[in-house]
Amino acid sequence: MEADSMKTSSLLTVALYVAVFHAAISNAAEPLASTAPASAPPQIMRAGSQPSVVAPAAYFTGRVRIDPVWRANADINAAGNLVTFEPGARTHWHTHPKGQYLMVVSGVGLYQEWGKPIREIHPGDVVWCPPGVKHWHGATPTTAMTHLAVSGTTVNGENVEWMEKVSDEQYNAR
Amino acid sequence: MEADSMKTSSLLTVALYVAVFHAAISNAAEPLASTAPASAPPQIMRAGSQPSVVAPAAYFTGRVRIDPVWRANADINAAGNLVTFEPGARTHWHTHPKGQYLMVVSGVGLYQEWGKPIREIHPGDVVWCPPGVKHWHGATPTTAMTHLAVSGTTVNGENVEWMEKVSDEQYNAR
Repeated sequence: MEADSMKTSSLLTVALYVAVFHAAISNAAEPLASTAPASAPPQIMRAGSQPSVVAPAAYFTGRVRIDPVWRANADINAAGNLVTFEPGARTHWHTHPKGQYLMVVSGVGLYQEWGKPIREIHPGDVVWCPPGVKHWHGATPTTAMTHLAVSGTTVNGENVEWMEKVSDEQYNAR
Repeated sequence: MEADSMKTSSLLTVALYVAVFHAAISNAAEPLASTAPASAPPQIMRAGSQPSVVAPAAYFTGRVRIDPVWRANADINAAGNLVTFEPGARTHWHTHPKGQYLMVVSGVGLYQEWGKPIREIHPGDVVWCPPGVKHWHGATPTTAMTHLAVSGTTVNGENVEWMEKVSDEQYNAR
């Protein structure tokens, strides 16, 4: 599995930190908790204060949007992001060092672990991606899908290791 | 704050473990990941496999429903629950040992920290409740509210310390 690895990245974490940094600036009217350390998140992050991020083609096939929800902090070691895949869009193959939960919010999606069949996932389904297990997820060819991704994050801020693309042959093999 | 404490409880964690235990039994057609340890969650928890739980009157005022989403595990130290408050319903005052994120999903809600004004929260808003800060949350008097609660969980499985009721005077003080 290590041989397939193209890059170790904490893309979502980086995107999230950027988004939250902007949110903290644009959201100055929201006071920080008076007892909170300087690194604590804003007490209320209002809807619209965290910009949507277009997922980069280096790690995703097709059009994918990331909407940051919460970031990992000193107490909670997982970040939350809503991820929306247009029809046909999917992640590249990847692993998570601390695992990931996916809560399907809308649409119809696909989830596959290396060497196993593609599974169809529907709103309300919750997927557990164990640490180190190579997999991908995305929309079906005809229907978009949004899931909440809850990404276990290491003390170094890493939560994903990206690998090669999911080929059209792999994606359509069901 | 300790003097106000009525009971240390990991109510949501317990409810969640019960629900997930039942889900694991009723969901036997869903294979566990072959490499997963015995304590790992099921790989896909299908919608409908985790029963709704009525929140107990010992810790909540009014009718509140908890729908478990995911549980804390060895890699992710936070549990996820959808919590739905009917109009007028709210938690008792409480603290979280490891903090909690609230993502408002629908309706209109209220959030108050001890000694601070009541804040109105709307869909898409994300609240960070810092560890040890006494607070409550719930619906408005006229409108229901559902939020995803992401509860930081200690190594002992504790994620909440319950305190006294939010009185009608406190609830209506805005």
